[in-house]
Amino acid sequence: MPRFKDTSLTCRSSDKSPRVVDPKSVMRTIDPAALEMIKVAQEEGIITAFDRVVAQQPQCQFGYKGICCRFCMMGPCRIKADEGPASRGICGANSWTIVARSVGLMILTGCASHAQHGNHIAHTLHMVAEGHATDYSIKDPAKLRRLSERYGVENIDSKNDMTLAKELCELALEDMAMLKGEGEVRWITKNVVPERNNLYRTHNVMPFGIHSVISDLVTQAHVGMDNDPINLVFSAVRVGLADLAGKWIATDLSDIIFGTPEPVASEANMGVLEAKNVNIILHGHNPLLSEMIVAAAREMEADAKAAGAGGITLSGICCTGNEVLMRQGVPLVTSFSSQELVICTGAVDLMVVDVQCIMPGLGPVCQCFHTKLVTTSDIVKIPGSIHIDYQEKTAMDNAKEVIAMAIEAFKERGDRPVKIPQHKQYVVAGYSLEAIYNIFASVNPENPVRVLNDAILSGELKGVAFMVGCHNLKTMQDKAHLEITKAMLANDVFVISTGCHAQVCAKHGLMDPANVETYCGDGLKSFFKRISANANMKYPIPPVLHMGSCVDNSRGAELLMDMARDLGVDTPKVPFVASAPEAMSGKATSIGTWCVDIGCPTHVGTMPPVEGCDLIYSVLTQVAGDVLGGYFILECDIEESIKKILNALEYRAWKLKIHKAVAEDLETSLSKCW
Amino acid sequence: MPRFKDTSLTCRSSDKSPRVVDPKSVMRTIDPAALEMIKVAQEEGIITAFDRVVAQQPQCQFGYKGICCRFCMMGPCRIKADEGPASRGICGANSWTIVARSVGLMILTGCASHAQHGNHIAHTLHMVAEGHATDYSIKDPAKLRRLSERYGVENIDSKNDMTLAKELCELALEDMAMLKGEGEVRWITKNVVPERNNLYRTHNVMPFGIHSVISDLVTQAHVGMDNDPINLVFSAVRVGLADLAGKWIATDLSDIIFGTPEPVASEANMGVLEAKNVNIILHGHNPLLSEMIVAAAREMEADAKAAGAGGITLSGICCTGNEVLMRQGVPLVTSFSSQELVICTGAVDLMVVDVQCIMPGLGPVCQCFHTKLVTTSDIVKIPGSIHIDYQEKTAMDNAKEVIAMAIEAFKERGDRPVKIPQHKQYVVAGYSLEAIYNIFASVNPENPVRVLNDAILSGELKGVAFMVGCHNLKTMQDKAHLEITKAMLANDVFVISTGCHAQVCAKHGLMDPANVETYCGDGLKSFFKRISANANMKYPIPPVLHMGSCVDNSRGAELLMDMARDLGVDTPKVPFVASAPEAMSGKATSIGTWCVDIGCPTHVGTMPPVEGCDLIYSVLTQVAGDVLGGYFILECDIEESIKKILNALEYRAWKLKIHKAVAEDLETSLSKCW
Repeated sequence: MPRFKDTSLTCRSSDKSPRVVDPKSVMRTIDPAALEMIKVAQEEGIITAFDRVVAQQPQCQFGYKGICCRFCMMGPCRIKADEGPASRGICGANSWTIVARSVGLMILTGCASHAQHGNHIAHTLHMVAEGHATDYSIKDPAKLRRLSERYGVENIDSKNDMTLAKELCELALEDMAMLKGEGEVRWITKNVVPERNNLYRTHNVMPFGIHSVISDLVTQAHVGMDNDPINLVFSAVRVGLADLAGKWIATDLSDIIFGTPEPVASEANMGVLEAKNVNIILHGHNPLLSEMIVAAAREMEADAKAAGAGGITLSGICCTGNEVLMRQGVPLVTSFSSQELVICTGAVDLMVVDVQCIMPGLGPVCQCFHTKLVTTSDIVKIPGSIHIDYQEKTAMDNAKEVIAMAIEAFKERGDRPVKIPQHKQYVVAGYSLEAIYNIFASVNPENPVRVLNDAILSGELKGVAFMVGCHNLKTMQDKAHLEITKAMLANDVFVISTGCHAQVCAKHGLMDPANVETYCGDGLKSFFKRISANANMKYPIPPVLHMGSCVDNSRGAELLMDMARDLGVDTPKVPFVASAPEAMSGKATSIGTWCVDIGCPTHVGTMPPVEGCDLIYSVLTQVAGDVLGGYFILECDIEESIKKILNALEYRAWKLKIHKAVAEDLETSLSKCW
Repeated sequence: MPRFKDTSLTCRSSDKSPRVVDPKSVMRTIDPAALEMIKVAQEEGIITAFDRVVAQQPQCQFGYKGICCRFCMMGPCRIKADEGPASRGICGANSWTIVARSVGLMILTGCASHAQHGNHIAHTLHMVAEGHATDYSIKDPAKLRRLSERYGVENIDSKNDMTLAKELCELALEDMAMLKGEGEVRWITKNVVPERNNLYRTHNVMPFGIHSVISDLVTQAHVGMDNDPINLVFSAVRVGLADLAGKWIATDLSDIIFGTPEPVASEANMGVLEAKNVNIILHGHNPLLSEMIVAAAREMEADAKAAGAGGITLSGICCTGNEVLMRQGVPLVTSFSSQELVICTGAVDLMVVDVQCIMPGLGPVCQCFHTKLVTTSDIVKIPGSIHIDYQEKTAMDNAKEVIAMAIEAFKERGDRPVKIPQHKQYVVAGYSLEAIYNIFASVNPENPVRVLNDAILSGELKGVAFMVGCHNLKTMQDKAHLEITKAMLANDVFVISTGCHAQVCAKHGLMDPANVETYCGDGLKSFFKRISANANMKYPIPPVLHMGSCVDNSRGAELLMDMARDLGVDTPKVPFVASAPEAMSGKATSIGTWCVDIGCPTHVGTMPPVEGCDLIYSVLTQVAGDVLGGYFILECDIEESIKKILNALEYRAWKLKIHKAVAEDLETSLSKCW
């Protein structure tokens, strides 16, 4: 039973404004655990995002289509007509400018978020290197050396790990800080294929310093600045690349600090909660504190037992969940849309959050239970929660403080009944690019990526689907993710997965190796069998390979670059498609942008605010393909999405085979001539 | 007669969607020239902002109040209820978060714009110092030395001007580029009084690098980040200070490159156009190219005459207009709201624009005439206009290219009739802080600012009104600016003015020294008389002192700091009020923010999107006063505004006199004791 309800925030809160919500209308999920918990929340009169999304209907169509502008105090201006004075904003801004501002704003928040994440990790590793953050260390010195070489640290052989780490971080921080005109972002130029660098330079979209790129587009959206649709789109393209750089920095340096993930077994969904244990949920996106909490929990198991608990159960939500799953095998408790519902089990003693995708709605829900909500970042605070000033220098102490609070909350919970849905799935995760190449190396030790390319060229595989992105409460939670993924598997597509998509797959059994037989087509099964035959694997391969958090999308980009290099082609020739079936956040828009930038057909299953301008819409879905090779597939219908994604892969695979055949033919002819 | 009309962009464009606009409803100005030109535009069927603002009515009240959120793809979310599920966004964001995001977005675009401006000027001066931009030079070496000392360049005496300029610019660029945790922005710490630095540090609002501060707030507004109203407001406070630093850099370094303004005579309003001359309008905010155009025009006068013109007439709009008025005496042709109307005279041969507040609506209006519209910044392009790739290295060549194009356009104009409203006013401008102190020095050579403080303490003056900011088409153009200013003058308030406010005063005779007698109260007249008596002045003092462009608001901040230092008090004790009667742009919101940050009661005469949350509203208007000393006076009624501004000044002057009297009394008593 809830002990306390913030009266302004529950359905039953007041007779003054009763809101009858059709109980069925809020059942916007196919996750069995979430369905159970929506009913519990309704019984308790607790409001969650599933109620709020219904209450927001109908949503404003000007905003939805991106033709409402609120960038200055003359507004709001809405494009209300095709011609005449109402066809532009008061300043004269066209629909394209207003649409570009609408979606550009989202892209900016995404890029800034990844910049903040990358900056924080780089700053921490720099502190480690200088001896100022002794709770952390360098767990993957081999990757440190590989990356130092890639990014141009000099005289690597003569330097120790700490010196290399310091210099590598300084290069990363330089990428963050550079001003316009001072240079090019190294985390792009050193990572993409030469054809891409050339394209970015000739089209003037190569990012200068990451923060400067952000600031530049922010000013470009000021009243009376840019009104040129192409110029605006190109700036967004540049911000997308800056986003990619920010997250690539985060992944690279996280692997150095915490180790590069290797296959690991775990579980997913709310059934991972243990009524008798101290239940702590790790939520957010940044592994810096959560990795410490995992370590501290092992040390403090005895304290939990002394308080009457069976032990400490950690579990994760969002990409902090993915980070600690990938490296530590911590189970996933649920995914974004249902983050409040898990609190309604009454079994969560403490939820600790860092950055991004943390629903403010968690505050009032936690207040209905004994659950302590702990914020840890200076730019993420929630009224009514507890704030810990996490510092890199005191990371382990901060982690222990969190666990001690959780143990206290467990005591407070006492023997109150809890309602834990008994749903969970077995999961094998941990497929960093290195881990995948380790498996491929059993077939081709010299050039592991060739294994994948050969499978595509031989027709065993149709290509690669890079499945990513969010939950969006506008859709049925999990449904599009799941159906599209199952279609990919059945059609022999190699599926790599990150972020919320990975969590959906985990919750629904698509990361259980036992389900390869059920879901994979013959080609994919044969591929898995071939690469497994001689590989030294701790776990069999699951249908979908969990590649990490949404920051780890850089791993997917790296796979594409390696495939292109091995094939000797630019990336748009590679049968590699990105898909975000429930795209939601600003980060999703910036990730989608760089997926297009690096040459991917990029499916988005929820509509960004661009439909209000045919010009921008056609630039994104068509012109982009001519200029960048990548383009958006904006398609909300699941069946249509599947067709379009498969078509894109088949078209590329067909062209690639012709390209290769012609090349080989030419070589044969030439060798005969000489 | 218009030669060509973009059919989608004129009132008469199509029979399909006729739009009957009540001719009276668009007469939203009291500027006589603008009133004439609105009629001309109507006769010609040309749409301008005066039509568009009417077409936008009624405006969405969710957006107007700041309670519509479009930062993620679950939205748009609107706060539709006080409680229950519709009282928050889908993610659970409260009204305060959504309001903070709404106004924060504007503040961000403002700060980024000033950062871009400051960065550009610093970059250029750095090129000058390194010999890479030879069209520019150092015009105020004395100021260079003063500022080098202030900002901490070392061993100044042993260095030549170019070395000093290089090192000073590097300090400025460091302020732009620094990352969070690396330091404090020097252009704040070295400029504000110690009490302010202390306050900013203890309240954790001291800006780190300018771009990082921007990026930090952008990520803070991402879905699932900050939901704490105070944390969000404090971040906006920090962005405000970053804005101040960006513009202070711009002003400081512009003075070094182009000279510090001194009093200069000119004229204002559309009557400055000369039918027989090549008319070129300089529009935007950055003096880098426009200063070159002024120089080139002098060189190319003969070319114009050879083409049959009487000569070249330059005139300005917005702050590029203010920049070249302040330093070169170039007349002002009109101000923001009426920028399209001036094209309708048919007399403008070319308008060259740089950055900010350039209405996209100019494009189609110019297409109705022979007028060439030339864009020059890589982040400000307008379809249908001509783009010149302005570069610092080729500035003079770029300027000459512009003038040559204007001469061609003049030839094209031939003897077509033009309609130039015969309204203009005499203007004396050029009152940089140094210029004002030069006058004050006639009374107190050792400590010029004391002259102003003494006048306030003696009751001769009520205080200082720092009148700034935009035009906003929601209001009657010029009216609030003018009425509030006249009330200030009549009540013996010393009025300093920048930006669009200065242009309103110029257009309506408030910068004509002959009007001191008409508008100024006895105290102010007596003050002007006293300080003029022994001063060596080229022109008598006008009622309102033109301090420069909106970037030059830093001059106003510097005056406040000097007054506080001289009085030995923190800034909130100084009778100094800021007012933006027609605030409009993102820059206005960021300027308003730092005006509050530096301790000013800050009047805003148009409503920012904050009314949707009582909490944020009261923080801005009340709590800010307790924390920062400055606070917002959000008041759209002109009479009420005047009362509130005068009240704020009187209250501060009264307290200051008591403070001083007590201090003197105490000193006398102490001296008697000893």
